[in-house]
Amino acid sequence: MSVPVHAADPGPGPLTLSGQGSFFVGGRDIQSDTLSTLPAYAPSGTITVDQVYVRYQIPVDPVRPPLVLIHGCCLTGKTWETTPDGRMGWDEFFVRRGFPTYVIDQAWRGRSAISPAQIEAVKMGKAEPDSLPPVFSAGREPAWAIFRFGPEYPKVFPGMQFPLEAQGEFWKQMVADWSAALPVPNPTVPGLSELAKRLKGAVLVSHSQSGIYPFQTAALDRTGIRALVAIEPAACPDPAKDDLAPYKDLPILVLFGDFVDASPRWAPRLKQCRSFVAAANAAGGRAELILLPEIGIHGNSHMLMQDKNSLDIADWLAGWIEKRAGKS
Amino acid sequence: MSVPVHAADPGPGPLTLSGQGSFFVGGRDIQSDTLSTLPAYAPSGTITVDQVYVRYQIPVDPVRPPLVLIHGCCLTGKTWETTPDGRMGWDEFFVRRGFPTYVIDQAWRGRSAISPAQIEAVKMGKAEPDSLPPVFSAGREPAWAIFRFGPEYPKVFPGMQFPLEAQGEFWKQMVADWSAALPVPNPTVPGLSELAKRLKGAVLVSHSQSGIYPFQTAALDRTGIRALVAIEPAACPDPAKDDLAPYKDLPILVLFGDFVDASPRWAPRLKQCRSFVAAANAAGGRAELILLPEIGIHGNSHMLMQDKNSLDIADWLAGWIEKRAGKS
Repeated sequence: MSVPVHAADPGPGPLTLSGQGSFFVGGRDIQSDTLSTLPAYAPSGTITVDQVYVRYQIPVDPVRPPLVLIHGCCLTGKTWETTPDGRMGWDEFFVRRGFPTYVIDQAWRGRSAISPAQIEAVKMGKAEPDSLPPVFSAGREPAWAIFRFGPEYPKVFPGMQFPLEAQGEFWKQMVADWSAALPVPNPTVPGLSELAKRLKGAVLVSHSQSGIYPFQTAALDRTGIRALVAIEPAACPDPAKDDLAPYKDLPILVLFGDFVDASPRWAPRLKQCRSFVAAANAAGGRAELILLPEIGIHGNSHMLMQDKNSLDIADWLAGWIEKRAGKS
Repeated sequence: MSVPVHAADPGPGPLTLSGQGSFFVGGRDIQSDTLSTLPAYAPSGTITVDQVYVRYQIPVDPVRPPLVLIHGCCLTGKTWETTPDGRMGWDEFFVRRGFPTYVIDQAWRGRSAISPAQIEAVKMGKAEPDSLPPVFSAGREPAWAIFRFGPEYPKVFPGMQFPLEAQGEFWKQMVADWSAALPVPNPTVPGLSELAKRLKGAVLVSHSQSGIYPFQTAALDRTGIRALVAIEPAACPDPAKDDLAPYKDLPILVLFGDFVDASPRWAPRLKQCRSFVAAANAAGGRAELILLPEIGIHGNSHMLMQDKNSLDIADWLAGWIEKRAGKS
């Protein structure tokens, strides 16, 4: 597979940034006596966990509000970068469109630290094997239908826009997922709240597993949150259980791709989000639910930010944000 | 702590890139029946591990050779980004200086996937607890002397340049380390070889734990390697055991900071690298070993790319590369 490197495809022309960098939000210190079984590293000490890694780029003329891009299950912030087939990611597209863009790694994922303490405690014989964290990886064969590349591995939905010729690069994006070992809400949620306050008006853009996080962040504290975009959320708030007051007057978009009704995993989630949107609007909300085929965009998988028409979708989404969530 | 975000410190002026993005090198597929103990994710399937995440930025006028920045133990590519006290990282400094810059996450670190299969096998009762991978984290108290902030926690060496007022942000950079569970050479090494070939003339810049990797990469295949820079390497090749032919005519710099002789961990490593440099040069090499105090730069910790004078060191290093490893 050809991937652009030094002096390759000239692309869309130079990109000028007024600033870029990375930092962490959130985090808490824990003391442990089971950090290591290696002679070179002491077993006892203090480490920091639950922090959230954030990388940002600021355009020279940031005329749009800051976006926070939050990846889903078994993936990292890489989700939003260069696509598997080597095209521009949403991270750069939105910067070029005038949005300061913040890409995170969820707590306990990617560059956001895990604690190995429970694993080492079991290895030392100080804890039982069934106390090990339920860390999992999604194999490509079962994940195939979850990503809606087709009804089952390796069948492909007709008109599929995911660049399956570069799927090997996509499988390399997948990482182990510790989220089932973490409390609810996920520690990413208070991290997002801290970030939103710092940005003083952020649009939180989630995907899949992280779909509920921005809603939980708004429920924690609306400060600094300008709008929510949930791309193919695994869950929306439950109108039968959750308070809908945090969503009053807040621009919310729930966006799904194609082939949703053909998916036993996603069809019920779409239905659940429809009921949330209706209830939120009845309670004074400004929520919308859009299926891409309804606006004339067809063939999208669950990984729509990497599909061949990913920048068409980004362009439409940028327009939605500009219209609903105003200027910076 | 103040961290630069949207519309904060204007910094050194706009940065213009001709391109940026991310991709993976290396990786192999494994099939496992112990990927998950959660009902929502199947235990059986194929995942890819051993790949190496690479993020790159290309200046508009790339007059210098491409650099590959390789982090050390218990850290990720974040090492080279914004410093804990919010200053420009080496990743951006070198791009501004005209070097295409590639920052990696070692295999099984950061955005480069681990396999959870052995952990889940033990959790399922299919393997014994002592078969768990020796994953460890370095607690800050024992790590203090390893990073040479002082002789022991929390004492500080006089004139210390590390921004200890921002140490909380540094501790958040630290992650669990799986390297002891991996074969030798680390899977990062063939990944670096693939990357060097793609870049057609790269300078491999290592730090600490990864110090030996570029040497191992050159021993595997010199193709695409223009020079090696080992910053505070945990090990250099052993002249008594290792073939020195791969280093003939190759510009090599081994660079150490300050307070090395005061460190029982680092003093022997410095001595070992001195013996390598002498032997490599006797065998037709072009190796140099520099201690920063010898060139008038004082007070540096093991994390010299984050110290308060980090850009002075980067400036000196850029000059060394330009002189010894030529133009791109």
